[in-house]
Amino acid sequence: MRSARARQGMLTKPHGSLGRLEELSIQLAGITGKSIPVIKDKVIITMAGDHGVVAEGVSAYPQEVTPQMVLNFLAGGAAINVLARHVNARVVIVDMGVAEDIPANEGLIVKKVAYGTADMTKGPAMTRAQALESILNGAQVVEQEIRRGLDLVGTGDMGIGNTTPSAAIACALTKRPPKEMAGRGTGLDDGGLRRKISAIERALDVNRPDPNDGLGVLAKVGGFEIGGLAGVMLGAASQRKPVMVDGFISTAAAMIAVSIAPQCRDYLIAAHQSKENGHGIMLEWLRLKPLLDLDMRLGEGTGAALGISMAEAACKILAEMATFGEAGVSEKE
Amino acid sequence: MRSARARQGMLTKPHGSLGRLEELSIQLAGITGKSIPVIKDKVIITMAGDHGVVAEGVSAYPQEVTPQMVLNFLAGGAAINVLARHVNARVVIVDMGVAEDIPANEGLIVKKVAYGTADMTKGPAMTRAQALESILNGAQVVEQEIRRGLDLVGTGDMGIGNTTPSAAIACALTKRPPKEMAGRGTGLDDGGLRRKISAIERALDVNRPDPNDGLGVLAKVGGFEIGGLAGVMLGAASQRKPVMVDGFISTAAAMIAVSIAPQCRDYLIAAHQSKENGHGIMLEWLRLKPLLDLDMRLGEGTGAALGISMAEAACKILAEMATFGEAGVSEKE
Repeated sequence: MRSARARQGMLTKPHGSLGRLEELSIQLAGITGKSIPVIKDKVIITMAGDHGVVAEGVSAYPQEVTPQMVLNFLAGGAAINVLARHVNARVVIVDMGVAEDIPANEGLIVKKVAYGTADMTKGPAMTRAQALESILNGAQVVEQEIRRGLDLVGTGDMGIGNTTPSAAIACALTKRPPKEMAGRGTGLDDGGLRRKISAIERALDVNRPDPNDGLGVLAKVGGFEIGGLAGVMLGAASQRKPVMVDGFISTAAAMIAVSIAPQCRDYLIAAHQSKENGHGIMLEWLRLKPLLDLDMRLGEGTGAALGISMAEAACKILAEMATFGEAGVSEKE
Repeated sequence: MRSARARQGMLTKPHGSLGRLEELSIQLAGITGKSIPVIKDKVIITMAGDHGVVAEGVSAYPQEVTPQMVLNFLAGGAAINVLARHVNARVVIVDMGVAEDIPANEGLIVKKVAYGTADMTKGPAMTRAQALESILNGAQVVEQEIRRGLDLVGTGDMGIGNTTPSAAIACALTKRPPKEMAGRGTGLDDGGLRRKISAIERALDVNRPDPNDGLGVLAKVGGFEIGGLAGVMLGAASQRKPVMVDGFISTAAAMIAVSIAPQCRDYLIAAHQSKENGHGIMLEWLRLKPLLDLDMRLGEGTGAALGISMAEAACKILAEMATFGEAGVSEKE
């Protein structure tokens, strides 16, 4: 990081004039241990899972949309496919716990822990063993991608109802009330939002998650794709690979990862500020400042894709710009 | 725009969930008159000029840096070269009024109006005829690029001291005082900032620019590269080409362009919020909301380059995503 910072000061531009791109390049140097980091192989891992809590009427879309969207990902027609192509990243789709079987497809990695979580308003969403399994599965996926070639990994999610467990995780860890954390997700009306807040309140009341036990929080009010993404983050960080964290759901996963291993935080980059209520509080808890703020609230890794392009730009600045000496440009008077 | 908006509502994502990318795609449909606009040929026009007002000690760098940086642009070693390559845009470098002759180079377009402006604290920066010439030269440059192939143009600037005339333009048009509009530019210390504010105050006092006369404001307190960029914007808008406006200097040029032809505003996209003082006031006057906020303050078109990538992404979303019907995905309940 010292070396990257020194080089930024020698490049042909006023000191600090590239703002967050400069900071990002220095962070990436620290993460990778390389004074001029290179981001070439970019991977977005999008994990899907279903949620028993949808029985409480917390989503504007029916549960069948989860597998339908997985098929859309595999066919290349979803927003994440378009944006990943735009930034030249490969997309890896993982079934972490969709409620149906998805027809075998060479593009689909199956790491299904179960056919959806249990309804967290009635008891824990999953067992502690399942929570651990979801994290280990996520770590395995990223390890395999690192073997295939990975300089930076972005996270993404798909799961009808998954803003509800994500908000519940955030409530458990920040101790803020559900009404501050729950948003309209894919487009809830007022009645839906009331049901969602009530479901989170009941889930917290029934399960009493311990904020000092990240794995326990995941088991009680989490989801399989959320655990999987936490595993991706822990696995990537353990091999000094930077993680571009997408929006609301990925940030809940980041909170689980950081609860389990606090040093993981330094490897995370917040891609964007989601329009979903409560996301700002989650980022504050993580002490992460988002790169972009484009009123997005889609998930899938769409924010991460755009953030990845910024990280790559930051590294190219460090690698490719001429220094004052090389270019024969006079320095500040 | 109606057709683009309707299509956004049919794509496999919750309505509005891609936020500003959706709005941008609709604006680009309106600008181009195409319901699915395509951004393939991207051009960044970076215009250079010098400023007589540097004699007042308003810049942290010596004037010789203007031609030195032009050579750096031509050699491909500056930040704008790196970021333009990153977003696959071609960079067009124009000498609008550098104080020295720059050795002939096939990459350099020479549209020099004069060897730098006059010191605006002593009288007008240029004649009214020169102001018009700078605008026409800029329009000619963009027209030539449109003939070569251009779907979207980004603007950029280089000119030691040019935040001073830019701030003066903004003061003249918004009637806000220089101390609100002047910033530290490339890194002025407190004494430099005081000299800069004083220079703008004296320039406004000596020249008394009329806020209802955009060409007159340019002549009295502007710069040749600023006039050229205003010409680029007017020329692009007249041919229904979108303009990605860079930071502080480009925004001053946009204010001149909009003062001359208010309908030009609809063709402008503000790439980013510059860290330079007063930029927010300028964007507010233009009623433009920046896409990015990365604490950048370099100019050259660096913010525009990153913004161009967002505009291209927005159009790809509209063009490439599957609809609910095509993908067999259930709609909202």
